[in-house]
Parts: sequence; structure tokens; C-alpha cells
Amino acid sequence: LSAPRHQTISFLSDYGLVDEFVGVVKGVIRRISPHAPVIDITHDIAPYDIRGGGLALARSVQYLPAGVVLGIVDPAVGTDRRLVAVETNDDDRPLTLVGPDNGLLASAVAMSGGARRAVSLTNTEYHLPAPGSTFAGRDVLGPAAAYLTTGVDLANLGEQVDPLSLLPGVLGLCRVEDDRVEGEVLWIDRFGNAQLNVGPEEMEGLGERIVVRAGHIVRPAVRAGNYAELNTGQLGLVVDSYGLVAVVLNRRSAGEELQLAEGDRITLEPGEDT
Amino acid sequence: LSAPRHQTISFLSDYGLVDEFVGVVKGVIRRISPHAPVIDITHDIAPYDIRGGGLALARSVQYLPAGVVLGIVDPAVGTDRRLVAVETNDDDRPLTLVGPDNGLLASAVAMSGGARRAVSLTNTEYHLPAPGSTFAGRDVLGPAAAYLTTGVDLANLGEQVDPLSLLPGVLGLCRVEDDRVEGEVLWIDRFGNAQLNVGPEEMEGLGERIVVRAGHIVRPAVRAGNYAELNTGQLGLVVDSYGLVAVVLNRRSAGEELQLAEGDRITLEPGEDT
Amino acid sequence: LSAPRHQTISFLSDYGLVDEFVGVVKGVIRRISPHAPVIDITHDIAPYDIRGGGLALARSVQYLPAGVVLGIVDPAVGTDRRLVAVETNDDDRPLTLVGPDNGLLASAVAMSGGARRAVSLTNTEYHLPAPGSTFAGRDVLGPAAAYLTTGVDLANLGEQVDPLSLLPGVLGLCRVEDDRVEGEVLWIDRFGNAQLNVGPEEMEGLGERIVVRAGHIVRPAVRAGNYAELNTGQLGLVVDSYGLVAVVLNRRSAGEELQLAEGDRITLEPGEDT
Repeated sequence: LSAPRHQTISFLSDYGLVDEFVGVVKGVIRRISPHAPVIDITHDIAPYDIRGGGLALARSVQYLPAGVVLGIVDPAVGTDRRLVAVETNDDDRPLTLVGPDNGLLASAVAMSGGARRAVSLTNTEYHLPAPGSTFAGRDVLGPAAAYLTTGVDLANLGEQVDPLSLLPGVLGLCRVEDDRVEGEVLWIDRFGNAQLNVGPEEMEGLGERIVVRAGHIVRPAVRAGNYAELNTGQLGLVVDSYGLVAVVLNRRSAGEELQLAEGDRITLEPGEDT
Repeated sequence: LSAPRHQTISFLSDYGLVDEFVGVVKGVIRRISPHAPVIDITHDIAPYDIRGGGLALARSVQYLPAGVVLGIVDPAVGTDRRLVAVETNDDDRPLTLVGPDNGLLASAVAMSGGARRAVSLTNTEYHLPAPGSTFAGRDVLGPAAAYLTTGVDLANLGEQVDPLSLLPGVLGLCRVEDDRVEGEVLWIDRFGNAQLNVGPEEMEGLGERIVVRAGHIVRPAVRAGNYAELNTGQLGLVVDSYGLVAVVLNRRSAGEELQLAEGDRITLEPGEDT
Repeated sequence: LSAPRHQTISFLSDYGLVDEFVGVVKGVIRRISPHAPVIDITHDIAPYDIRGGGLALARSVQYLPAGVVLGIVDPAVGTDRRLVAVETNDDDRPLTLVGPDNGLLASAVAMSGGARRAVSLTNTEYHLPAPGSTFAGRDVLGPAAAYLTTGVDLANLGEQVDPLSLLPGVLGLCRVEDDRVEGEVLWIDRFGNAQLNVGPEEMEGLGERIVVRAGHIVRPAVRAGNYAELNTGQLGLVVDSYGLVAVVLNRRSAGEELQLAEGDRITLEPGEDT
């Protein structure tokens, strides 16, 4: 495999694709760094959803090319919250994450070897002059990402900050007690699969037949290797493509069936074998 | 016109743009083939809609650049359905289509000169190691598309299969009987235009004024060269940009007006001239 | 900063991302001009909304790289309305705008130094041969944008037209009378911020506390530097990232709260200080 000539910017935001926000940030990037390709991770993170954006970054980051990851979910835009660039410890795939210091980047940084260096993006020479302070993606974060791909060193973008001072993410662990697993819905995808913060090893105490509790809904479920093994309407627990347990149906939405939302508590208990 | 330095990957899926699926596949592609540009055909094929995805590929394929077409609508992901790469017979614009062998690629292959060679993507050296089996786009199909643009020969990706064994598409022909044309709605686009599986030559027996029947709805329509020729609320039959007959309104949705869905039967009959 | 090797095409349309329209235009562009990068401004302009598309282009254009701006919102597709390419007067960032002559491009042209030369895209040598006349983006506008990035001169694309004959945009100015400002909602973004055609200097006659009238709704509002300064539910007037006054709430939609639509009239009056 050949090394790319230009570093990639992988871009996630809650800007949506209806307004021109994403296009404008890309225009700004291209004027600063004409040859840096931009990969869109997604721009449809729910508005202000730092948790959802952070989880999407954490799921994606191991698959992204070397370069810059630009993450923008920034409810406190315009206040004195810090905007940061964080260089990670992975030498095989050098990665710098750029975004607000509100926990959005934390899990992705942790999954990339942790933070080696970090700066607060305070050097206005690398900002766009702007009339208001409400579009930091265009005026500060996008330019920082672009300059990093042109060879500007992190240290030039602002004052160094202690990586330990960066706001951590809020990833709850599941609880295993007796033969119950208490977890949380991390993500409900387009197909209605509900990914839990539960690994397959945490389900060892449970048998083949499992009872899923979510709010007032109680439903039997079976372990399955994939969706297609399930009969119509049969609830399944599969190890998903990220190695986590997901509650699924075959060609239908488990999220709708169990009336789940991201962040909901969910309990797995041993079911009775018949 | 100059030849491109790098082969293009044209990418269609039912992944949607809300989750990070498309971004992750692009990250994987870029790490394997840093300089291959990716064109998004669309990612909003309805979940599991093999027919809709196959029709969108068929409409698009003649306009796509040489290289790879990556098509992913894969309801049976994780089962033993084959994943394939199909090289077409068009020497002027060499094209290899990559996707599940479920009929999705069939019409596009047929419109590109037919299949010359095909392989089943069984060589795991060209797969990503993955925890689950539910994200074939990331782990098998995306990598195959990427390796093809780096010069890897089709034959390396897996065992050769007989092109005749590939699952065909299911494209119904319209029926012309006496002076009636019985067709089917292939596609309802964003503007509400309903494309039929009817060519202009099949309407020769019908006059200028035509009656459109769709379910319980019966409406007069006129032939028109384009939308703007139609009066407000007047139903029109135009030859659309793909050379097929479409039922349209001027600046309104004919699909909504006639309560149509893709796949619906529709009948065209001669109307009475007044 | 290095100059880009290839000119960029910045692309806005009302095609949406569900159908394959955008992908097909990109395929056509890449076959003509293999190395021209394409930036998507947005493709979710409401169908036929020339005003909304024109405003999005006007907001974006100052941030776009040199090259071509392709704008397609074309309700009269297939009629004899002109399709044009307009070269602007800005020598620092040479820009040619391509689209229908229906006012869509007008504000963006004006903001880029005005029109220097314009042609009607009548030279069919630079069109795609096409069965119908309803997909001008694929058959005429996309090819024109692509050829311009390969070095084809504007004059080759068709007959020259007087820039003064181009249809102007319809941008209403706000009225300031006594101590009232009567404006219009230009744009409601994803976050519900309602941008007005009112600049900060036009609010000078108003005090710190302001009354906002929109239809039957009357609400007090305060000036604020950004969203986060506002208490929960408190309506604010901020200078937005384009230098215009916007009606906003903190982490909620001001557009929904005031039941606003783009184009609505809105009045700002001095409020009583308590």
C-alpha cells in the first residue's frame, strides 16, 4: 500500500445536510489546504448530542486514515469553552482530533492510544476573521484542521494544555450482578438494531434463552449469529460488527418494537428453557 | 479529455447518512487505496430495498466513470449468500461491480455489456478482521472495491463463479394489449414524478388524450414535452431524462396526487377527445 | 499556501440526496474532468425554492474556493428559460457561476464583484445527448461546469449575453421607521435560528429590551452575544455568523417557538424597561 500524498480530514458534526454549514466548512478547508481530502463520517448527529457524537466517533475512529479528525457538536458555541486540538499516541497512524473540549472527542482519543499533546486553539492568526462568534466550525475548528494538514505544527495553533485537563467522555459501564446484566442503549441504527454497552463476555452467566427488560416491556430473546437466523418477530441478541451485544430483529426495527431510545436502561436476565 | 490517474469507486447503499456506516466504509477504502476518489450515487435506498437499489444503479451506471461500482443493499448480511465482484464486457469503460449476489447488480451489469468474469469474495486475505459478521460493507465489500482500484486482479479476491449463476434482477416488462398499456411504477423521485416501465414507442396506440388508472383513481392526462407545458393540476405524460414515460404534474407531486408507491400497477388507456 | 492543481466545483441544488441525481451529475463531471474536486454546498434546498437556494449561495460564496459554482434550482426545466455561465469580476479568486437564469445566481454574483462576462449555454457540442429535456443538470449544466475546469473558455459554451440582461434576485431590504424595524425571515437553520434581513446598525434606535412581533405572536427579547448567554426560554437577538441579526433561543428552536417560516414578516420594536 502506498502512503497518501495528503493527509485526510475525517469530519463529523451535528450540522445536518440541509443548511450549507458543512459545505462552507469544506470551502474554508479547501482554500487553506487545497489537496486535503475530506471524508464525511456523518453530519446528522442530533443537534447538541455530545454523547451520540462521541459514540459515533469512538465507533469510527479505528477505521479512519491518518490525519485529522474534525468533530463538531458544540452547544456552548460562542462562550469561553475551549476549542482544542489533541494529538494521539498512535505512531502507526498519526491522528490529531480537533473540536470543542466538551467530552465529544474523549472516547475516540482514548481508543487511539490516548493524548500525547493538546493545545487550546487560541492563536487568532489561524482563525478566520468573522462577524459573529456562532460558527466556530467555519472560523476556528475548520481552519485548524486544514492548517494541520499543511504541515503547521500543533504548537502553533495556541497555548499548550495538559491532556489530563481535557473533559472526559461519559461512557457508563454495564453492571453484572448474579445472573442479571444491567446495561444501556448506546445506539439505535437506521435498521433499528440497538447496540448495548455489553460485551459478549458479560453475558456468560446467561443461558441460550434470555429475557430482555426495557421499561415496562419484557420480551424473550435468543442469541444469534446474525439477523437472518431469527424467525419473523423473534428478538435476537447478536454480537455486532463492533464486538458489542445488540438487540435485533430480522428485517425489522428492534428499537421500535421495544420502544427504545438511546441512553435507555435495559436488563438481560436468564429465561426459562422450555 | 485526459485519463484519470486513479480509478473511481461509485458507491450506492441503503446505509443512510445518519449513522456513520458510509463514513467508515470510506475510511476503510482510503486506508487501502489512498487516491481512489469515491462518488456517492445515493445512500438513501430504503432499507433492504434490493429492487429500488437495483433500479437506481441501472439508471446511473451509464453515466459513471470507469472503475468500480460498489452496491450494498444486503438484507441477508451474515448468512452464506455470496458477495461477488463482476467484471463487465465494456472495453471502452472498464467497470467492475461489487456487492451481494442478490439481484442488486444485475440490471446495471446487463446495461454495461454483461458479465465477462465474476468471483465470489472468499479470499479472507482481502477482508478486514472483524468481531461480527453484520457489516460486510466495511469488512468485505469496501475492501474488495478498494483493492481493485490498487491493481489487484479480480481473480485474487476469491473463487471464480459462472456469471450465469448470478442472481438476475426482477424487472417486469409492461404489457401492451389492444389499446391499453399495463405498466408498473419503477420510481417516484423527490419531485413526485412517477417513472413507468413504459417506453414512448409503447404508447403509439394511444392518442393525445390518455386516461391513467392507478388503483381506484382514474384521471385524464395529456402528453407533454416537459413539466412547464402543463396547466396547474393537469396530469402529464412526459418522456423523462432516461427515455421512459413518467406521470407528472407541474411543480407538484404526481405520486402523491395519484397515491402511488413504487411497484404499483398503472394502466394507460385512450381518452375521449372532446 | 499552495495553489490547487485543479479547480473546484462547488455544487448546490434542490435534488435531495435520496434519488441518485447528485451522484449522476458527479459521474458526468468526473468523466469530463477527472481531477476536479466537487464540494457539496447543499442539495436539500426545498424543491423549486429559487429564493432559498439563492440565499444559501449568497451566504456561502465568500467562503468557496476559486473555480466554478454550479447552482441548480430549476422549476422551468425543459422550457426555453436560459441556462447560463457567469464569470465574475474578482481577480483574486476567479469564479464562474453556472445555472439557470432565474435569479438563483444573482446575489452570489453580486457578492463576488458582479458579472464580467456571461454566456447562454447554447453550444450543444458541450451538452450530453439525452432522451428527454428534464435533467439539465446532467445534460447541460454539469457538463458546462466540468468543461470550464478543463480550460475550455466561457465563450465556447454558447452565445454571449449581456450581464445586465440576467434576471436579478429578489432580496427585500428591511424598513426602519421611527423606532420600528420591519424585516423578513431570510433563513431558519437546523437549530431553529431565524436570520433576518436586518443588520446590527439598523437596530441602533432600539434599546436593550426589544419586542418581536411575528404574525399574532408578540414576545420580549434581549440582545445577546451568543446563545449561551440566554436563560432557558428567553428569546434573544444575536449578530449571527454572517453579520445579520437572528432571533434565537438557547438550545431550542426560535423558529418553532414563533411559528416562523422563511419569508415571513417580522417586526422589532423597543420594549419597556422594567
